[in-house]
Amino acid sequence: MRGVFLAYDHGLEHGPTDFNELNVSPKYIIDIAQKSEVDALILLKGSARHYYDKKKISIPLILKLNGKTRLFDGEPFSTQNTSVEEAVKLGAAAVGYTIYFGSKYEKFMIREFGKIEEEAHSIGLPVIMWSYPRGKNIKDDESPEIVAYAARAAFELGADIVKLKYPDDDSKLNWVVKSADKTKVFLAGGKKLDDENILQHVKKAVDSGFSGIAIGRNIWQSDNPVERIKEIKSIVKD
Amino acid sequence: MRGVFLAYDHGLEHGPTDFNELNVSPKYIIDIAQKSEVDALILLKGSARHYYDKKKISIPLILKLNGKTRLFDGEPFSTQNTSVEEAVKLGAAAVGYTIYFGSKYEKFMIREFGKIEEEAHSIGLPVIMWSYPRGKNIKDDESPEIVAYAARAAFELGADIVKLKYPDDDSKLNWVVKSADKTKVFLAGGKKLDDENILQHVKKAVDSGFSGIAIGRNIWQSDNPVERIKEIKSIVKD
Amino acid sequence: MRGVFLAYDHGLEHGPTDFNELNVSPKYIIDIAQKSEVDALILLKGSARHYYDKKKISIPLILKLNGKTRLFDGEPFSTQNTSVEEAVKLGAAAVGYTIYFGSKYEKFMIREFGKIEEEAHSIGLPVIMWSYPRGKNIKDDESPEIVAYAARAAFELGADIVKLKYPDDDSKLNWVVKSADKTKVFLAGGKKLDDENILQHVKKAVDSGFSGIAIGRNIWQSDNPVERIKEIKSIVKD
Amino acid sequence: MRGVFLAYDHGLEHGPTDFNELNVSPKYIIDIAQKSEVDALILLKGSARHYYDKKKISIPLILKLNGKTRLFDGEPFSTQNTSVEEAVKLGAAAVGYTIYFGSKYEKFMIREFGKIEEEAHSIGLPVIMWSYPRGKNIKDDESPEIVAYAARAAFELGADIVKLKYPDDDSKLNWVVKSADKTKVFLAGGKKLDDENILQHVKKAVDSGFSGIAIGRNIWQSDNPVERIKEIKSIVKD
Amino acid sequence: MRGVFLAYDHGLEHGPTDFNELNVSPKYIIDIAQKSEVDALILLKGSARHYYDKKKISIPLILKLNGKTRLFDGEPFSTQNTSVEEAVKLGAAAVGYTIYFGSKYEKFMIREFGKIEEEAHSIGLPVIMWSYPRGKNIKDDESPEIVAYAARAAFELGADIVKLKYPDDDSKLNWVVKSADKTKVFLAGGKKLDDENILQHVKKAVDSGFSGIAIGRNIWQSDNPVERIKEIKSIVKD
Repeated sequence: MRGVFLAYDHGLEHGPTDFNELNVSPKYIIDIAQKSEVDALILLKGSARHYYDKKKISIPLILKLNGKTRLFDGEPFSTQNTSVEEAVKLGAAAVGYTIYFGSKYEKFMIREFGKIEEEAHSIGLPVIMWSYPRGKNIKDDESPEIVAYAARAAFELGADIVKLKYPDDDSKLNWVVKSADKTKVFLAGGKKLDDENILQHVKKAVDSGFSGIAIGRNIWQSDNPVERIKEIKSIVKD
Repeated sequence: MRGVFLAYDHGLEHGPTDFNELNVSPKYIIDIAQKSEVDALILLKGSARHYYDKKKISIPLILKLNGKTRLFDGEPFSTQNTSVEEAVKLGAAAVGYTIYFGSKYEKFMIREFGKIEEEAHSIGLPVIMWSYPRGKNIKDDESPEIVAYAARAAFELGADIVKLKYPDDDSKLNWVVKSADKTKVFLAGGKKLDDENILQHVKKAVDSGFSGIAIGRNIWQSDNPVERIKEIKSIVKD
Repeated sequence: MRGVFLAYDHGLEHGPTDFNELNVSPKYIIDIAQKSEVDALILLKGSARHYYDKKKISIPLILKLNGKTRLFDGEPFSTQNTSVEEAVKLGAAAVGYTIYFGSKYEKFMIREFGKIEEEAHSIGLPVIMWSYPRGKNIKDDESPEIVAYAARAAFELGADIVKLKYPDDDSKLNWVVKSADKTKVFLAGGKKLDDENILQHVKKAVDSGFSGIAIGRNIWQSDNPVERIKEIKSIVKD
Repeated sequence: MRGVFLAYDHGLEHGPTDFNELNVSPKYIIDIAQKSEVDALILLKGSARHYYDKKKISIPLILKLNGKTRLFDGEPFSTQNTSVEEAVKLGAAAVGYTIYFGSKYEKFMIREFGKIEEEAHSIGLPVIMWSYPRGKNIKDDESPEIVAYAARAAFELGADIVKLKYPDDDSKLNWVVKSADKTKVFLAGGKKLDDENILQHVKKAVDSGFSGIAIGRNIWQSDNPVERIKEIKSIVKD
Repeated sequence: MRGVFLAYDHGLEHGPTDFNELNVSPKYIIDIAQKSEVDALILLKGSARHYYDKKKISIPLILKLNGKTRLFDGEPFSTQNTSVEEAVKLGAAAVGYTIYFGSKYEKFMIREFGKIEEEAHSIGLPVIMWSYPRGKNIKDDESPEIVAYAARAAFELGADIVKLKYPDDDSKLNWVVKSADKTKVFLAGGKKLDDENILQHVKKAVDSGFSGIAIGRNIWQSDNPVERIKEIKSIVKD
């Protein structure tokens, strides 16, 4: 299974600085998701509560369970703000959680993820890990070694899908995929400017065994978001 | 729905230094609330236990569930002192909680708020977030970027209402409201002296889509508190 | 209601350095309490378990639920050593808890007190707060502003009674009482030497609206403890 | 009641450096205990699980519930490794717990001990406190003031028995006993070399009201352990 | 009982840097395990979930319950990511847990291990401790004193099996075994290059009373893994 996930958890992580008058509304995002038939939509509980009506929206919901702001710049620690139970109430088809491996607080996120993974799987809900090595110990979070490590850690901790940065040496993409083994690997999008060559990235990633991409800004900051997704989908599902 | 909330949680946050012989008593505040028909009254559990009798007082109660003193000046961390269950016993129609985004302890408040939000909503109680970026990472907590971030974080974490500082560039008020999306935005009052132009602030805020104001000192430190609320109400509900 | 409480929790807080051959035994204290008919006796669980037999002792017991030694001199943090349930088993008529407002650990004591307050009140047990601002942020814990703050914080957090230091400007005693509002204010005793003018303090405090005094060393270090209490009682209940 | 307890929890606290080919085995210790008819045997759960069979061994078992290694040399904090429930399963007649008063972590040990004390007493199990002031605030942990403080803190927190260091001024032994009040005081043994005058210490301690000694190295490092215990017993039970 | 355990938890601890195109897959490891008939296979939950089918695989599974990455280089603290209950669901015949004795966080691992030990034993599951003194207090984690300490601590805390480093003075191997008493001692493998003399190490260890070896890289980085295990088995079971 390959897919394109439309990510929209930036409001907590970055603040509305990523948004404009249109995409500041989850409704705008959901419209894009529906029109483009993405494979899943990633929301936090606030957006989900007000905009995600499972009966009316056919796109599966991935509920992100933890988050932090970028206002604190110390060692990163993202804590759970939504229970698995609540995610179910909100209609989620899967749950997501970020671990900042290498942070001083890695240990607490590993423990929290461990409980979420078991609870979610006990009721049949897939678990997606945002596996982001970060903190003052991490010099280059896009090195292939670090990205492959992030992939492997997600697999060993039981994630069904792992969201990863694009490594700065793409000859190692295949090794990243192998490191993740049974965990499906999704590319994490990034800043719009950085991702001008996103299509090229996606193509290389998918050719190397990635299962898809979770993409946000590159879509909803675009003038033609639906077309952009379709373009990416055609590569992913090729 | 627009409204004026009368806030009176200063006893724990600031100590009685804000009070005089009259307004040191919650009774005085409740009398103002009733005479002026404010839309809600914000109390801590101590005041509520002794003065808020749901059968006799028609003004809805918002119970503030966390708080801290200003006697400790390190990174701010306000902890829960009242359970949702207790808030219900005390007759609360809604609960409130402060998150100091950007604090070193942001993560613990996000987690605690997450549990409160779910428990309160599970029994139909609205949740109000005092969304106050603060701590040594926050250089200017009244910049429009920070206020809009505070608004968005509250929305994404599931708050029904968010209480925000007035941004120091009011051309961005509308953007703040848009950032909060489905979360209603209330202006936070402030020191009396600072707020001489409070009416002007309220008007601009409401014109920009704010749903009202949660105001304290500016009212109960005034010589004509009831009139002052009515004046504000006339602007808010215009 | 006015009263004199006989306090005897110094064994944990100070060690036996306050004691002599007589008053080192809780029995000696209980005898004083009974002969002088104080209004309540304050004990920790160890003393209560061995000496407080509710059937035989008519003096109500206030069980102190937290404590610390003075052997650690960092930021003060007093943790719960006795549950409310255990206090009930030991025959307590009320429970006590210290918060060191202004300490780096204030937040944890506020949270712990919050739970105790709700549990105790849910079974009808009054809650007494030792409200002692302390820590490196507190320059003068006897300033009237700090004492009034301590009073108000206790009220807002739901304490029925608050135990406070005597402010170093006693023209503000009345303001302290007003700040505590519905929470009854009790004077905290202190070192014997410091309290030679204790009777004068009690008189001024009671005249200003204090409900009584919780006194320890000044009594059981005295040669005539029973007489001393009666003397104080005559002032308090005047 | 007076007694001699044979202590053997050094494996975790010190490592096997205290042991030789014989006493490295709990079996050797239990044989000594049985032959010498000590009043109790102190073990950690590992030793108890393999060697303590309540049906066959008449010596009561005191199970030590917390411990730490000496490999970390920061502020001491000994955490619970065995539940009260497990102690019962292992046949314990009493449970033990160390508090390092004066440590930065005193507060967490006070809280943990508080829960253990209540749980153990609720099922009729006596509680023994190793009351050891330690940490960078403690200059001399054998001063009579500190030892008496340790005794009193144990009493106030509900310990039935307290294990204490021998104070460096033994004219204060009686004061230590008085400070412990209803809590029985046991002398803690120590290094073999230091304890050449152990018999003298025991005699003075017992004469001053100590109830016995909990002794380890001095016995099982001796060539004649059974005789040595009997010698001590004759002093203790004189 | 003597044995050879095949360890494969390196994906989380080290990242895939230890792996090549073959051994990056748990399937490759499991094939080795089955062909060589090792006595147990050590996996984390991710690998176990996808590859360990109890009905088809006769090799017993040891599920490792905690782990950390090497991306954070501060005082080591490995937290639980898998519950005992989950281990049972995954078909585990035993559970494993690492304690870094000497770390600043030793205390939290001792507490967590204590709970796991009791829960696992209550349902008849053996518990294996990776007993690794580490942290800035540990100058030489291969000194015989430290290795013997690690062995003893595991025994006292109730581990059935302890995995230890090979001490740098192998005349003390026997003392290490004696220190572990009833806890079976397994040698921990290590880097391939370091272990060229692994057979010699195993022989000496087993001759000194070790029960076997838990070995990973040395096997699955070898060109002839099955033969290599058989070679080791012949020594271990000699």
